[in-house]
Amino acid sequence: MGQRLGFGVIGVGAMGRIHARHLASRVPGARLVAVADVDDLAATAVAEELGGQAYERDSDLLTDPAVEAVVIATPRAFHKQLVIDAAAAGKHLFCEKPLASTVEECTAAMAAAETAKVKLQIGFHRRFDASFSEVHDTITAGGVGALRTMHMTSRDPEPAAGNASRSPADLILETSIHDLDMARYLSASEIVEVYAAPVAAEEAGSLEGVLLQVRMANGVVATIDNHLHSAYGYDQRVEAFGTGGMVSIGNETPHRATVSSRSGVVEPLPLRFFEERYDAAYTAELAAFARCIAEGSEPAVTGADGRAAVAAALAALRSLEKGTPVRVEGQGQEGALL
Amino acid sequence: MGQRLGFGVIGVGAMGRIHARHLASRVPGARLVAVADVDDLAATAVAEELGGQAYERDSDLLTDPAVEAVVIATPRAFHKQLVIDAAAAGKHLFCEKPLASTVEECTAAMAAAETAKVKLQIGFHRRFDASFSEVHDTITAGGVGALRTMHMTSRDPEPAAGNASRSPADLILETSIHDLDMARYLSASEIVEVYAAPVAAEEAGSLEGVLLQVRMANGVVATIDNHLHSAYGYDQRVEAFGTGGMVSIGNETPHRATVSSRSGVVEPLPLRFFEERYDAAYTAELAAFARCIAEGSEPAVTGADGRAAVAAALAALRSLEKGTPVRVEGQGQEGALL
Amino acid sequence: MGQRLGFGVIGVGAMGRIHARHLASRVPGARLVAVADVDDLAATAVAEELGGQAYERDSDLLTDPAVEAVVIATPRAFHKQLVIDAAAAGKHLFCEKPLASTVEECTAAMAAAETAKVKLQIGFHRRFDASFSEVHDTITAGGVGALRTMHMTSRDPEPAAGNASRSPADLILETSIHDLDMARYLSASEIVEVYAAPVAAEEAGSLEGVLLQVRMANGVVATIDNHLHSAYGYDQRVEAFGTGGMVSIGNETPHRATVSSRSGVVEPLPLRFFEERYDAAYTAELAAFARCIAEGSEPAVTGADGRAAVAAALAALRSLEKGTPVRVEGQGQEGALL
Amino acid sequence: MGQRLGFGVIGVGAMGRIHARHLASRVPGARLVAVADVDDLAATAVAEELGGQAYERDSDLLTDPAVEAVVIATPRAFHKQLVIDAAAAGKHLFCEKPLASTVEECTAAMAAAETAKVKLQIGFHRRFDASFSEVHDTITAGGVGALRTMHMTSRDPEPAAGNASRSPADLILETSIHDLDMARYLSASEIVEVYAAPVAAEEAGSLEGVLLQVRMANGVVATIDNHLHSAYGYDQRVEAFGTGGMVSIGNETPHRATVSSRSGVVEPLPLRFFEERYDAAYTAELAAFARCIAEGSEPAVTGADGRAAVAAALAALRSLEKGTPVRVEGQGQEGALL
Repeated sequence: MGQRLGFGVIGVGAMGRIHARHLASRVPGARLVAVADVDDLAATAVAEELGGQAYERDSDLLTDPAVEAVVIATPRAFHKQLVIDAAAAGKHLFCEKPLASTVEECTAAMAAAETAKVKLQIGFHRRFDASFSEVHDTITAGGVGALRTMHMTSRDPEPAAGNASRSPADLILETSIHDLDMARYLSASEIVEVYAAPVAAEEAGSLEGVLLQVRMANGVVATIDNHLHSAYGYDQRVEAFGTGGMVSIGNETPHRATVSSRSGVVEPLPLRFFEERYDAAYTAELAAFARCIAEGSEPAVTGADGRAAVAAALAALRSLEKGTPVRVEGQGQEGALL
Repeated sequence: MGQRLGFGVIGVGAMGRIHARHLASRVPGARLVAVADVDDLAATAVAEELGGQAYERDSDLLTDPAVEAVVIATPRAFHKQLVIDAAAAGKHLFCEKPLASTVEECTAAMAAAETAKVKLQIGFHRRFDASFSEVHDTITAGGVGALRTMHMTSRDPEPAAGNASRSPADLILETSIHDLDMARYLSASEIVEVYAAPVAAEEAGSLEGVLLQVRMANGVVATIDNHLHSAYGYDQRVEAFGTGGMVSIGNETPHRATVSSRSGVVEPLPLRFFEERYDAAYTAELAAFARCIAEGSEPAVTGADGRAAVAAALAALRSLEKGTPVRVEGQGQEGALL
Repeated sequence: MGQRLGFGVIGVGAMGRIHARHLASRVPGARLVAVADVDDLAATAVAEELGGQAYERDSDLLTDPAVEAVVIATPRAFHKQLVIDAAAAGKHLFCEKPLASTVEECTAAMAAAETAKVKLQIGFHRRFDASFSEVHDTITAGGVGALRTMHMTSRDPEPAAGNASRSPADLILETSIHDLDMARYLSASEIVEVYAAPVAAEEAGSLEGVLLQVRMANGVVATIDNHLHSAYGYDQRVEAFGTGGMVSIGNETPHRATVSSRSGVVEPLPLRFFEERYDAAYTAELAAFARCIAEGSEPAVTGADGRAAVAAALAALRSLEKGTPVRVEGQGQEGALL
Repeated sequence: MGQRLGFGVIGVGAMGRIHARHLASRVPGARLVAVADVDDLAATAVAEELGGQAYERDSDLLTDPAVEAVVIATPRAFHKQLVIDAAAAGKHLFCEKPLASTVEECTAAMAAAETAKVKLQIGFHRRFDASFSEVHDTITAGGVGALRTMHMTSRDPEPAAGNASRSPADLILETSIHDLDMARYLSASEIVEVYAAPVAAEEAGSLEGVLLQVRMANGVVATIDNHLHSAYGYDQRVEAFGTGGMVSIGNETPHRATVSSRSGVVEPLPLRFFEERYDAAYTAELAAFARCIAEGSEPAVTGADGRAAVAAALAALRSLEKGTPVRVEGQGQEGALL
């Protein structure tokens, strides 16, 4: 227990607080030693609740020697610079998605980590969820034969706090990016083309949802259905079809009670939102990160994964603008990016 | 097609009309040639709709040479005598359950059929239902290992027409008897004891439901839950547990649409009642009966099956009266009965 | 019963035989009076089994005065001319999909029916299926709020008989066309664009499947996933999402038995193929057709529905050829087509 | 956080270790300060892993002033005396079920707690489980109308460690007792009669399972199906039927992935055993206990609940011995017991 890695969390909005809470009490191999937020009252409140030092300035957290690794959970605009600064300070890096806002920025962030010889893991927590993992493992074990098509659904009950009026960039870079990563992860292939259909853009400049058709380098084709308002709650599913069968996941629910009455046979609604649905996955991804540092092994979700997802997300954005399918540039091809 | 067996239906209440309709159009190897009912208007109406001769008197139908087999679908009080009369007239016999109201009457009916060398099949249609058959076949194939316990549920949406104020005898001899037969059929053993708990007998002499604990000769123990009013509709289920696993069936529904909204994830209610739920089974049992006559083979549900179910049902009735578990007398033991 | 409409079936392959069988015994308001097939042995065999006159030549069937309506179930190449000939002979027309192979041919067929003042209904049987109808009725009743996206799945266990090596045209015009019709029917809007991704075209000129992204005039976006080989059997589903919720259907199964053992909780596979799955829908569509003739009302699925589906299917084919999204031409716009 | 109540755990077998682990890290309002076990190596190992003082003798733990409350998780034979001793030492009492082995012992334990003015809560954790709670709340809110029948299933994947060859007393007092408590809790009524059917007693003196028919004072009738070996794993279900509908729960699973292939549609098996299945409930019951101490309120599960369940369990045991239904003595009737 004495060798638990000291973590600092930068940005204590919704996601940052979740990570801080898990680090404070239940991530094996990790402990919370500091938090930082430009809103110093927020930082202080978290530190008082969970322990550790509170900082208003990131730079102060980064010079705290007790901090061995950082979780970057600020708005995405600050990710790239924080990765570079924290890497320069010798801290291991767990960065929330998206890694950055452009492919070039991603490459710069990756280079900074590589130069500093620190680990860099991206917050694609679904890879650590029991149900999504089961889909991955079933595919990998040949349980669906040769993979052909996938259908992914991510619908929020309402826009996450602070994102009430989302731009297309918000929707694609914050929500769709999880499905884009999952498309890569499950198919073990790269996204080569995205065709994005806007859904119900009733106000200028904002989207209610998006439906993506995604083609992979190995011929697999996937659809992604994202919405910001789902009347029945948080909907997180995937279906993968291949020559040998199909694997699919349903939603997790708070209980398993069914009520049968005159009005129907009523099953429970899904778990409310990401905090409840991915509670275990958020712990697992940080535990894996702490373990890869301790063991000196490769992170389970690399900077290259982060960049490939950003490249695909940017293609989706361009597809929305142009109204045509768009090729993904640079994904997985080091040469092309540098 | 020329060799279709000529059927007469005696009693054209709800069940009789179902059988007549199926015989008229879709039971392989059978055709409807006559119907009889003490209500001659009812008989005439059915004959006009479906074809065949209408009789007011059973005895007239029984002397019609075109009638080679009869379906007895009158109230149970008349079953025994009709079996004896029809057997004497040389007609093959398909008798609705219960075969008769006492074990002795059942034995007399069986003897009449045997003497006349005509086939006698009892209307335990669940044995011909796809879901119940699958349970039976799974058990028989060893799919649950050694069978240990069973739980059976038969709940009606409302009492079947003409049975609005049911006595315990009505409930047990008309509804529970199906589950008692299923207990024997699925366990391949005889019922040796029944303990019956009355449910909500709010009016003197009437029952809302009954919960039976049934012990089989081979050690299997079963529960049977019967109710006359089910708010969510017709509930027909069974679960069988053994050393190797469990097989269970859910309800059939009119469609497979699920609606997810703010108020829950709503699945459809079951098919409305027996006519919809067992539509295919009613055809299949008559087809099997026609086939056993054509092939000279043993009926799938024998007079002995009918008698054993009556014996168990009477034990359940005595258990209700006495308030103690009651041994079943005479079931499956020819000697004891004759 | 005397007023049952006399039907002739032209083409007694798999679908023609299904229709003939249903007409012979169970379609209310209809009876089978004749069948025709270039394979006269096939026609004779069907007539012997089901009754009615057998013809080798369509023209002979069309001059048979007992034939008041025809079911056209030949390969699609013959549809247009048969519609024109049968209309000229004054027969009402039930034509299997696709109505014809081009939009112009569809228009010509529609014009022939209109000139002859005969009814023309297209064989989009899913509109008569209980589950698909429930989805339609739920949407129409506002059960999902404003419709946003739909996901449709049609996967065959194996290619239907006689289609073993399907071309893209076979796949799109025979299978996808059902989903394209469903997209129109459920959204109450026209298809304006199709983007088709080929799946696993391992042999030159053949497709294993296709994934379509379909945009409707009212902004709804749909995906269609079609495959010719599904290891777990016939998969027929739809999911419709809107601002108020979601409605989706699962597959029908031959029974409802679940087996729980060491190896998992095993539910039954879907009904085998179209004949079992849509058994009731095939009867219902012909019953509706007979009724619209008897009542002089509009068919439930019109020639215009048939043409719009063909227009969308051809757009899908062009999208496959060109590798880009393709606008649908002429659908629902009388002027543009004539 | 400074006011967390100091807990000592007596007995660090499977259940004791679970409680200790939860107290050490995640029970709000509680902290682990000591453990005791006659196996001093076991006690030391737990203390080393989780913190707190290790004792070999209960009496030493009971004199530790840091211990404000105790969790009694020893074999049941020691429960009564430990309750009396701990109460005398002024410790609040969380006692695993069964409270004691006879009704008289239960009464003595209750009296000791009352005299010492310490809280006494019994470890019926299912009352704190989300699914069982949902059933309870649905019934209480009138969601099934007037309750009529209940069916409860508790099947273990294998006998819990240390219970490999269970006697009837082990089965009934350790497993069935949970269902007996649930019968009381869900029906809000007392058990008045139990009829127990032994299942597969292949070795003398041991049981594979038991099937109970239980009658409640308010007329509700319940069945309880308990087995020690379930091939498909830990099966924990309940179904409650009433005049207005039914509520039932299915098993929790480690994930929600379904695999469809040639061999069927395969759902996941249940969570492995009690530790996984009731992980949250074990925390919740201790949190509630800590809260009732802090607030000076009544425990959610009282000594009287513990005694009533023991009374019903003993009736089940007598029913097994005598082979007849047995009335429950003394439950809920203070006078009769003292």
